[in-house]
Amino acid sequence: MTFGGGLVKIGWGKQEPVDDSGKAFMEVLIGEAEGAPHFYMRRFVLEPGARMAAHRHPDIEHEQYVLQGRLVLGLDEREIVVGPDSIVFIPAGTVHWYENREKEPAVFLCLVPKTAEYRTEWV
Amino acid sequence: MTFGGGLVKIGWGKQEPVDDSGKAFMEVLIGEAEGAPHFYMRRFVLEPGARMAAHRHPDIEHEQYVLQGRLVLGLDEREIVVGPDSIVFIPAGTVHWYENREKEPAVFLCLVPKTAEYRTEWV
Repeated sequence: MTFGGGLVKIGWGKQEPVDDSGKAFMEVLIGEAEGAPHFYMRRFVLEPGARMAAHRHPDIEHEQYVLQGRLVLGLDEREIVVGPDSIVFIPAGTVHWYENREKEPAVFLCLVPKTAEYRTEWV
Repeated sequence: MTFGGGLVKIGWGKQEPVDDSGKAFMEVLIGEAEGAPHFYMRRFVLEPGARMAAHRHPDIEHEQYVLQGRLVLGLDEREIVVGPDSIVFIPAGTVHWYENREKEPAVFLCLVPKTAEYRTEWV
């Protein structure tokens, strides 16, 4: 629903697969289509068994908030279990990966700056 | 906890009051102190009865995600009830206000661009 210049979305939209596992999905919540001028909000769902392999973005930081479930998060050489209300900041250039080792989906927000080029290096 | 360049926070930190009602609070989750280069993540808590009066930011958009509770949100001349998993985009210049008419706290994320000057106009 749009209200003047504002926008409210309730519920879930179309989720796009984000890797070859078929178990990880992403939905852009507030992005180019919504006219976001500086940064984009995306929601990721990692089904049980999903793994997003280690990678880094040379130019792009992540600001994340875990909504549901539990994830093993790799950050550089460390790993940590995150769950609901965990807050994660991943600066540009930091290697990171995710794995859902639980029986429930894990859901988190991941915000990124608006950029012309979204570079990813797999490591 | 810091990991290389990354940062993970679990749980709740210090909440600052954001209005005169004494019922609305804000915590910066990822901001200047965390080295966020482009945009900041804040978490708002509106206790029952809290109201944040109508205002607009001429230069600053909001990207919001409701985590908990229920809020009446005013956007320009309209109002809408939002709750968990509601997504709200408020472009710069759009008048907005919030009111918690329920018996439980309402909690939402509100992300804003990093800016030298955060202007607010009460209307």
